[in-house]
Amino acid sequence: MTFPVVGMVGGGQLARMTHEAGIPLGIRFKLLSDTPQDSAAQVVSEVVVGDYRDLGTLRAFAQGCDVITFDHEHVPTEHLRALEADGIPVRPGPGALVHAQDKGVMRAALDRIGIPCPRHRIVTDPADVGRFAAEGDGFPVVLKTVRGGYDGKGVWVVRDEAGAADPFKAGVPVLAEEKVDFARELAANVVRSPHGQAVAYPVVESQQVNGVCDTVIAPAPGLSEELSAEAQRMALTIAEQLDVTGHLAVELFETRDGRLLVNELAMRPHNSGHWTQDGAVTSQFANHLRAVLDLPLGDPRPRAPWTVMVNVLGGDYPDMYSAYLHCMARDPQLKIHMYGKDVKPGRKVGHVTTYGDDLAEVLDRARHAAGYLRGTITE
Amino acid sequence: MTFPVVGMVGGGQLARMTHEAGIPLGIRFKLLSDTPQDSAAQVVSEVVVGDYRDLGTLRAFAQGCDVITFDHEHVPTEHLRALEADGIPVRPGPGALVHAQDKGVMRAALDRIGIPCPRHRIVTDPADVGRFAAEGDGFPVVLKTVRGGYDGKGVWVVRDEAGAADPFKAGVPVLAEEKVDFARELAANVVRSPHGQAVAYPVVESQQVNGVCDTVIAPAPGLSEELSAEAQRMALTIAEQLDVTGHLAVELFETRDGRLLVNELAMRPHNSGHWTQDGAVTSQFANHLRAVLDLPLGDPRPRAPWTVMVNVLGGDYPDMYSAYLHCMARDPQLKIHMYGKDVKPGRKVGHVTTYGDDLAEVLDRARHAAGYLRGTITE
Repeated sequence: MTFPVVGMVGGGQLARMTHEAGIPLGIRFKLLSDTPQDSAAQVVSEVVVGDYRDLGTLRAFAQGCDVITFDHEHVPTEHLRALEADGIPVRPGPGALVHAQDKGVMRAALDRIGIPCPRHRIVTDPADVGRFAAEGDGFPVVLKTVRGGYDGKGVWVVRDEAGAADPFKAGVPVLAEEKVDFARELAANVVRSPHGQAVAYPVVESQQVNGVCDTVIAPAPGLSEELSAEAQRMALTIAEQLDVTGHLAVELFETRDGRLLVNELAMRPHNSGHWTQDGAVTSQFANHLRAVLDLPLGDPRPRAPWTVMVNVLGGDYPDMYSAYLHCMARDPQLKIHMYGKDVKPGRKVGHVTTYGDDLAEVLDRARHAAGYLRGTITE
Repeated sequence: MTFPVVGMVGGGQLARMTHEAGIPLGIRFKLLSDTPQDSAAQVVSEVVVGDYRDLGTLRAFAQGCDVITFDHEHVPTEHLRALEADGIPVRPGPGALVHAQDKGVMRAALDRIGIPCPRHRIVTDPADVGRFAAEGDGFPVVLKTVRGGYDGKGVWVVRDEAGAADPFKAGVPVLAEEKVDFARELAANVVRSPHGQAVAYPVVESQQVNGVCDTVIAPAPGLSEELSAEAQRMALTIAEQLDVTGHLAVELFETRDGRLLVNELAMRPHNSGHWTQDGAVTSQFANHLRAVLDLPLGDPRPRAPWTVMVNVLGGDYPDMYSAYLHCMARDPQLKIHMYGKDVKPGRKVGHVTTYGDDLAEVLDRARHAAGYLRGTITE
C-alpha cells in the first residue's frame, strides 16, 4: 500500500474532525498531542504525546510522515524551517504560516499585495496609541498583541491613552487598528493545493458573541453577488500571493458603506467553515487533507439553500449527553458535533448544524439545539 | 462527562465507518479486533486485540462498556447471553441476532410471523434434496449451510442430486431453497431502538456480481409505491417481531410476477446501506449508534434524487492511491471510502458514492471511479 501518512500537530477539535474526514480517504493519520486526553487524541489511533515547542519532539514525530499539517498556528516558525530542511513537506509552509502567526507580518503583507485592511500600524507605548488615534478618527482604537491571541484574547478596545497600558505589559509588539464601524462580519474560506489548484466556499456571515464565534450562516444572507465575488477573490489572492497550502479562512468586516476589510487570517480548518461538514459537497476538513496531500480538490458548493452552524459553549450543566434526548427527538435532521471536551462555562465544546430551505426556521432549529445543549434553553 | 462507551466487536470496515460516525456524537468507542492491522483498528483509539470466540476475552472487553454491538454476526450466542447475564446491554441481543446467524432459525421465524420467503426446508442428505426438488418445481435448488456463510460463500446452486454432496460435508445443517426467478434484488434497511422507535430508509436496488454486492441504487428505480411500502413494512415487522435493536438489512427478491421474498437478514450496518453516508440525512452508521444507545433516531430520508454506491474490489494493481488523482480530478463530487485493507483480487477494499439528479450520469460516474480504482478502466 502506498497510502500516505499525514502528521497533524495539535490535538484539538480541528484535528479530531480532520481525522474523521480522513478515515474515508484510507490515509494514515498521526497526531502530536499535548495530552492523551486532548479532543483528537481520544479518537485517533496513532498519537504521540509531546510538546510541539520542542524541536526534537517535532522531528521524531515527523519521522515517517509524508506531510505535516496543523491544528493551530503556534508551532515556532524556526522549527518548521528545520523540518523543511529535513525534507519533510510542511503545509502550510512556514513562509505562509507566519502571516497567521504574526498580525504585524500579516498586515504588512496584505498592504503589499493591495488587500484592504482596517487602518493600522505597530505602536510602541500608550502615547503612541494616542498619536495613532489622532492620525485617524480618534478613539476608540483596537490594540492587538501581534502573536498569541485568539477568540478575543490578546485584543483590547481602548477609549483613551490611559486605558492603553495593558497590551504593552506582555512585551510583545502591539498592533493598533481603527475600530471599524462594520455592518457585520463575513468569512471567505478557500483551499489551495501545492499544485496551485484552489476552490472557494460560499462566503458566510459570522456572528460573534463576546469576541467568540457564535453563529455562521451559509451563504451570507443578502450579500450582493459583487461583494461575494470580491470576498472570494480577496481570499484566493491572499492564498496565492502568500503561497498558502491547505485551508485559508479570511475573516472580513463588511462596512456600513459597503466595503470589505480583512480582519484576521487562519491557515487551517476554521470555525467559520464547520458548516461545510453537513452543508457542502466537500467539507473543509476533507479539502484541507486533499490540499496538503496535493490531491485534486473536492467540490465546495453547498448542498442546501441554507446551512447554519451554532457553536455549543459550556454552560452550568456539565452533562450535555442527557440533552441529546430532547434535541434529537425534537429535530431528527439536527447534526451534533461534540469535541469530547470537559464542559467549562464559555468553553467551545461542540457545534450543531442545520440546513434547509427556510433560513428563519433553519436558524431557529440550530439556536434552539445549541441553547438546549448549553442549558440556557430548558424547554 | 456522562458520555457513554460503545464497545464494538469486530474490526472490519463496518466498525471503521461506525467509529467515523460516532466521532461527532462525542461518545467513546472501544474496539475488539482480531489484529492491530484490521480496518477499524487502524483508526480507533481504544483497541483491544483478542478473539471474540473466547468468553473471557469478551467479558474483559465488555468491562466499562455501556453497550456492546457488532461488526459481524459471528459471536457465539451463548457468549452474548453470558454478557447479558453480567448486566451488559447487548444490541442486537442474542435472541434477535440468532436470526442473522442461523438461516434455519431465520426461516422458521419468518414463517411464524408471516413474512414471505422462498420455499424452503432443512434437508438431511442429497436424496432429501431430490425430494425437496420434487415437492416443488424441481431443480435447480439452492443449498445453504445454516451458519457461517457470507458474500456467496456457504451457498451452492445444484442441478441434480449427484451435485448436492458438498454442502453436507461441513457437518452443519443444510437449508434447501427454491431458486427464485427474480427480476432483481432489493434491500430494505431499517433501524430500531430499544425504546421501539424505528425508521425506514428508502428501498434500494442491489446488484450482485458473482454473489458479491457490486452496485446499490437508492431509491430502487421504477419500484412501485406499493412494493416500496410493502418492503419497508416487511422490514419494520421483522425488526419489531424479532426485537432487533440497531440496524437491520432485509435483502429481498423482487420476483418477475411482482412479489417480494426475503433472501437474507443482517443485523448491523450493511453494504446495501453504505449509500446513506453521503446520500441520506442520517447515515446507517450514525443511526445504528443512536439505536444501540437508545437515542432518538435520525431522519433516514435521501438528500438527493439519486444516490449510487459501487463497491471497489481489489484488482491486479495494489496501488489504489495513485488512482485518486484521476478519479478526484475527473469528478470533484465523487466520494471515496477506503477501508485501509491490502488489495487482493476480488476483495472488498472500499466503495465510492455519487449522487445527483440524473440516474444514468450518477451511475456512470460511480462505475467509472470504482473501475478506475480497481484498474479495470484505465482511461
